Amino acid sequence: MVEVKPVSKEWLERARAYHDQLTKPAGSLGFLEELGVRLAAIAQTLKPRLGPGAVVVCVADHGVVAEGVSAYPAEVTAQMVWNFVRGGAAINQVARACGAVVRVLDVGVASAVEAPGVVDRKVRPGSGNIAREPAMTLAEAEAALQAGMEMAREAIREGATLLAAGDMGIGNTTAAAALSAALLGLPAEAVTGRGTGVDEAGYARKLGAVRAALARAESRLGGFSRAEPLALLAELGGLEIAAAAGVFLAGAEAGLPVVADGFPVTAGALLAVRMVPEVRDYLFAGHRSVEPGHARQLEALGLRPILELDMRLGEGTGAVLSFPVLRAAAEVISGMATFAEAGVSGREG
Amino acid sequence: MVEVKPVSKEWLERARAYHDQLTKPAGSLGFLEELGVRLAAIAQTLKPRLGPGAVVVCVADHGVVAEGVSAYPAEVTAQMVWNFVRGGAAINQVARACGAVVRVLDVGVASAVEAPGVVDRKVRPGSGNIAREPAMTLAEAEAALQAGMEMAREAIREGATLLAAGDMGIGNTTAAAALSAALLGLPAEAVTGRGTGVDEAGYARKLGAVRAALARAESRLGGFSRAEPLALLAELGGLEIAAAAGVFLAGAEAGLPVVADGFPVTAGALLAVRMVPEVRDYLFAGHRSVEPGHARQLEALGLRPILELDMRLGEGTGAVLSFPVLRAAAEVISGMATFAEAGVSGREG
Repeated sequence: MVEVKPVSKEWLERARAYHDQLTKPAGSLGFLEELGVRLAAIAQTLKPRLGPGAVVVCVADHGVVAEGVSAYPAEVTAQMVWNFVRGGAAINQVARACGAVVRVLDVGVASAVEAPGVVDRKVRPGSGNIAREPAMTLAEAEAALQAGMEMAREAIREGATLLAAGDMGIGNTTAAAALSAALLGLPAEAVTGRGTGVDEAGYARKLGAVRAALARAESRLGGFSRAEPLALLAELGGLEIAAAAGVFLAGAEAGLPVVADGFPVTAGALLAVRMVPEVRDYLFAGHRSVEPGHARQLEALGLRPILELDMRLGEGTGAVLSFPVLRAAAEVISGMATFAEAGVSGREG
Repeated sequence: MVEVKPVSKEWLERARAYHDQLTKPAGSLGFLEELGVRLAAIAQTLKPRLGPGAVVVCVADHGVVAEGVSAYPAEVTAQMVWNFVRGGAAINQVARACGAVVRVLDVGVASAVEAPGVVDRKVRPGSGNIAREPAMTLAEAEAALQAGMEMAREAIREGATLLAAGDMGIGNTTAAAALSAALLGLPAEAVTGRGTGVDEAGYARKLGAVRAALARAESRLGGFSRAEPLALLAELGGLEIAAAAGVFLAGAEAGLPVVADGFPVTAGALLAVRMVPEVRDYLFAGHRSVEPGHARQLEALGLRPILELDMRLGEGTGAVLSFPVLRAAAEVISGMATFAEAGVSGREG
């Protein structure tokens, strides 16, 4: 079992008090101060430093695409794996600009992908069609979760000080919607959006698939409220969502800040926090996407997004784009002079 | 006179059409795509690249502090210059994290500052008390503007590919409020905020000072609507606001993207755009601060802020924090594969 040490309130208070002594009007760096305080408390030092980052792009296919829920054909998942390893995808460019290594993890692409550099931990060739059957078995859910954890641990061994999970999988906002509805006790329509841009008829099919999946899973589990997170995952799935949850669990266990991306990855974050609540102490929201369910997830996690750029791509792009802001937040608290050190006068009166 | 070449609509359209061919659902990178399209059109290439950045921190004092408009004593301006050169201020940390060189420009600190590395272009020891007299003469306004332009050109010669202006000057949100009200035809209360955090009584004095400055300047200039920007600057001033305007003018003239910071610096951007409208084509809004007048300025400029982190410090912190996002936007358009190049299938149907 994963053990995550809670971030201490004492450290948060100590870091906050220290931030107020730095040479700026107290609070004038707004949310950047809050980020720095959390990073200091996580690292248990007033001088936190963030070096290289890593993003684990978790990839899998989804049987539910048979219901006509996506604007793109399922073969795009495998094609994009090649794009990731050749460096042609959005995440490759964002990672270069923002100081992150990209790792690609195949936990369930439907076809064989023999792309160099992809870590093959394929649990099964795509999840089941959740509208009609479970996404995977409990053992498969556990295996996908473990694959994500191991990738995160490897990234940390190789020097990552900041971790994000990313996702690729045609159909995965359908799985993320079903899983988020079940985890948050929300109706399908509150968390089902357009994903990569499905049309009106496709949206109706998608909503229908989410409802069918929820009805099916609820009856199998005898309700959602007391269901084990792993059982929810196995029913409603997303092998890459499971792997993303594993990245957050292993990152938090290692005491590192972990950054959520968009809707599918944040479903993984919700799951990780449901499994081990202390993961929340290490979790940051890189951005808020336009997918409507993402805001509900962030609300439930109590996380303010760092960026709001109307993105909805996934791959970890929104998470990695926030890395420089997190690094700056760490630099500010660790490098600024206090009023006393700098001989700067404080407020009058 | 400064000559700024307009950014061509043809290039904007060409870059937008190209962005839609990249391996992602069209529009799925939201505002990041718009930033990339603008950067491509500015550089007149589909493969724009942004390297090192620079921020010119423009520093000056304000006679209007005699009216009791600030929470901090005026000597803080000079103390902060020392903090900048010693690397202890917020902008030093943000610049290190976000790839920018910090240049400190003294255009009007009230006392002599002999800090190493500060560029001494002091036009006068602080502006006049705008509630009672002009901030400066026309010649002084021109000199401060020129100092900013020269600093920007020097930064460009030394390799900057991306420029921001920052500000430091106790009392400068009062000058920025007066100047913005005059430039935008708004009442004092629409653009006067708490600055670094003045209390209720201080706010009343600040609002009174802005109103007095506007009444005085309006009567001297015979109204604001047809007044020359330089005349408005001389009346309502801010030597560092003038220098910031110079940074934007010279950056745009050199064909580089220029990034506005908070309320005082954006007053400089408004002024630069009023002088040479084509500057707007090169201008980005790094962030939106909590100072209420900043939103009015950005609205008038038609600029969406990249970051919204409730910051209100100045120094260029909000501008420089956006540099990695701008770099990522440039990398995305220049480095991503098209659907055709990557052999990725497009939308179905």
